[in-house]
Amino acid sequence: MTATTDNTAADVDAAARAAQAAFLAYGASDAATRGALLRGLADALEGQREHLVALADAETHLGPARLNGELDRTAFQLRGFATQVGQGAAFTATDDPAVAGPPPAGHPALQRVRVPLGPVAMFAASNFPFAFSVLGGDAAAALAAGCPVVVKAHPGHRGLSQAVAGLAHGVVAAQGLPAGVFALVDGPGHDIGVALVQHPAIAAAAFTGSVRGGLALQRAAQARPRPIPFFGELGSVNPVVALPAAIAANGPALAQGLAGSITLGCGQFCTSPGVLVLPTGALGDAFVAQLVEALRAAPTHAMLTPQMQAGFASGRDAWAAHPRVQALLDARAADGAPPRPFLGQVAAADFIADAHLHEEVFGPAALVVRVDGSAQAIEVLQAVGGTLTVTLWGADADTPETRALVHAATQVAGRVLFAGYPTGVAVTAGQQHGGPFPASTMPATTSVGWAALDRFLRPVALQDAPAWLAARGGRPC
Amino acid sequence: MTATTDNTAADVDAAARAAQAAFLAYGASDAATRGALLRGLADALEGQREHLVALADAETHLGPARLNGELDRTAFQLRGFATQVGQGAAFTATDDPAVAGPPPAGHPALQRVRVPLGPVAMFAASNFPFAFSVLGGDAAAALAAGCPVVVKAHPGHRGLSQAVAGLAHGVVAAQGLPAGVFALVDGPGHDIGVALVQHPAIAAAAFTGSVRGGLALQRAAQARPRPIPFFGELGSVNPVVALPAAIAANGPALAQGLAGSITLGCGQFCTSPGVLVLPTGALGDAFVAQLVEALRAAPTHAMLTPQMQAGFASGRDAWAAHPRVQALLDARAADGAPPRPFLGQVAAADFIADAHLHEEVFGPAALVVRVDGSAQAIEVLQAVGGTLTVTLWGADADTPETRALVHAATQVAGRVLFAGYPTGVAVTAGQQHGGPFPASTMPATTSVGWAALDRFLRPVALQDAPAWLAARGGRPC
Repeated sequence: MTATTDNTAADVDAAARAAQAAFLAYGASDAATRGALLRGLADALEGQREHLVALADAETHLGPARLNGELDRTAFQLRGFATQVGQGAAFTATDDPAVAGPPPAGHPALQRVRVPLGPVAMFAASNFPFAFSVLGGDAAAALAAGCPVVVKAHPGHRGLSQAVAGLAHGVVAAQGLPAGVFALVDGPGHDIGVALVQHPAIAAAAFTGSVRGGLALQRAAQARPRPIPFFGELGSVNPVVALPAAIAANGPALAQGLAGSITLGCGQFCTSPGVLVLPTGALGDAFVAQLVEALRAAPTHAMLTPQMQAGFASGRDAWAAHPRVQALLDARAADGAPPRPFLGQVAAADFIADAHLHEEVFGPAALVVRVDGSAQAIEVLQAVGGTLTVTLWGADADTPETRALVHAATQVAGRVLFAGYPTGVAVTAGQQHGGPFPASTMPATTSVGWAALDRFLRPVALQDAPAWLAARGGRPC
Repeated sequence: MTATTDNTAADVDAAARAAQAAFLAYGASDAATRGALLRGLADALEGQREHLVALADAETHLGPARLNGELDRTAFQLRGFATQVGQGAAFTATDDPAVAGPPPAGHPALQRVRVPLGPVAMFAASNFPFAFSVLGGDAAAALAAGCPVVVKAHPGHRGLSQAVAGLAHGVVAAQGLPAGVFALVDGPGHDIGVALVQHPAIAAAAFTGSVRGGLALQRAAQARPRPIPFFGELGSVNPVVALPAAIAANGPALAQGLAGSITLGCGQFCTSPGVLVLPTGALGDAFVAQLVEALRAAPTHAMLTPQMQAGFASGRDAWAAHPRVQALLDARAADGAPPRPFLGQVAAADFIADAHLHEEVFGPAALVVRVDGSAQAIEVLQAVGGTLTVTLWGADADTPETRALVHAATQVAGRVLFAGYPTGVAVTAGQQHGGPFPASTMPATTSVGWAALDRFLRPVALQDAPAWLAARGGRPC
């Protein structure tokens, strides 16, 4: 395993200053330069696949199949952003020629361009050691936008982080770019992260993790003399709403698939379904029974860190001890063994009334909420308030009921699925990974898909730009 | 004058609930409905022009010429957003058809649409009683996006606010829309505003005003159980950088124009130039002397409120008493008379070193900062950090110096002007009115121009949408 190093505040300062210095050239770089860097990083990841996957598996227990797939996705993301930049995505401009005459209709020539924000602080996620970590989607999007990145390693996979950072340093150097384009900082506790977010050279921060950790970093970003944008993805319960027609048509297969989604990666996905909105009555009862059996048989594995396993146990125990929650499946594992799935059940009115039940329990656990009809299902969605996804099975026909449900779902989620399961997030142009708080602190932006590039660019209007500047598309360097 | 009413927390609750109820229908309204509302509001404003301008002048002292022009602009904004909506601006979607095969390249069908955020809290500005107030740009953009609005009146023009609100209620009723689409709340102190921002039915807030007031409301927005987006425009010193060549070519006219921009509306523009970056030496000395003379002769009028006049006096006195600031023009007005312009001068190093000197003094005042060359001008811009505009005179030639200056300007400003003066903001597609803090709390968005619509929409990805929904462009209602 690669040796890890505890960085100091002085190291954070050096990394942020180097990023600021590198920004002068890198922020003004062309599409070819950025594309070559992103493709070089993808090639390097793939070139060290065997070594990196072994490191990641030892640190995260996620298994080689998942980790190889995640490395594939990470390389795909890097190359995809290279393609986006090559197609001009970071360099679009709105030309608005002068209009003669007095205001309000008359106006000077304006060219609305986009500029990179500057050095970005990135916080690697526990649960995606490749795809949301050192060279993950946030880093790829920021580099595509022209922003140097300083990544804070996640304590759950420090060895892998160092190895990936070493590879990135090599690619940056080989391509003749300033070293400050990429840096990794690492250390226990929160001091390093707070120092990074508060460094004057840092222009934005991106984070994927817990509500508590994210809010602490957001406060730090806003306590600066000059607050900066904070893109935090903090938590999501991903309701799945099954209408009776869907259960009647396909109940057993849906129950089996849902159990797989709840336990995928031992429930450590930000899109893991945590609230299951099911009808009261016999149809719902049968579905719940099938789900319990499928969950009982589902494989699990060790969670990412002992702290997360303890956090899961604590959340599960709180649900199990809740006077209004009926435990449908609560098979405890032996000490030190991987956790077993938990399924609880609660009446809709009780769920709606208790905000604690709307909080995510990270791990293989879900709450069944039984509803009398779609109006109550809508109330449950409104109680959840903010989530990355809502899944809605059985909305195939255009009825007032399905319209109202879809409307309610779009009001609280960033993605609404009409088939399948919320785990698995496509990296593509149509993706939206974000949603009202706590899903995202910036719900108008996405952290997955090509539109993630937009987070690291800011519009600037150039008024009466001189000919030399207008001819360069408004880009001074 | 129209009677004003102090609203209570119960009134705020009623307005927010009515907005939430209205959102069900209005959020799903089509372009024709929204366009008719926006055009109806513009027509009604113009139809009561004489009455409204007289009310506004009595309350703000801005004068009929300016106020008639501002009413023109407000009607232009409303109609412009109607045109935007008619052209589909609020209803764009990215269609991303399914790609066969395993991930990461294979993916389900996705349709990325935009949905309105929900009821928006608006805070009217002191300094634009029409264009940034009850039916101003924020309200027009939100209504165009499908969001009901609840406006908090500004205490500086309560009578006008009530009159405009009455007119809006009439238009909403005449068009058969739910009354909750528009509401005004009014009252002294901060309680009404905080209650509005914290109401669970409110989905976003937009504010134009002071750093202190804006930060207090932003804290309230983030202290909610579910924080909401807060679009705040809080302050800006709008540096004007004059390179020697520009002064040599055109100094006297530029000095005259600059004095007019500093004193326009008695300095009560968010884009009023507050920091003038001028060369050391004889050329700069001559320009400063011309500017002092032009300012000495410039007309002023009473400020918007006695509180603002007191705030200006306090800021001016702090500059005048600053050991490093040389007062170049400090003609005090008699008690109760309109304030006279203030011009101070400070060395670049002293300006850079003292963060207090980077804060806006709202009113007819500016600080001259003398610099030795463009590298020091860049340091001054970096010290300012965040501003709505930077004006850069003399960047006509493509040189390393002008490139570096333009780059530095785009890093701190939302708009960079190469001619003219920053006061006067065109309402058009190419506009960007925002910038790093304190210019905006959301620097990727604009509060002026057609792109302001984007603030009140949020992307949602529809995955495997049923045929009926896809055929409706992803809009359920």
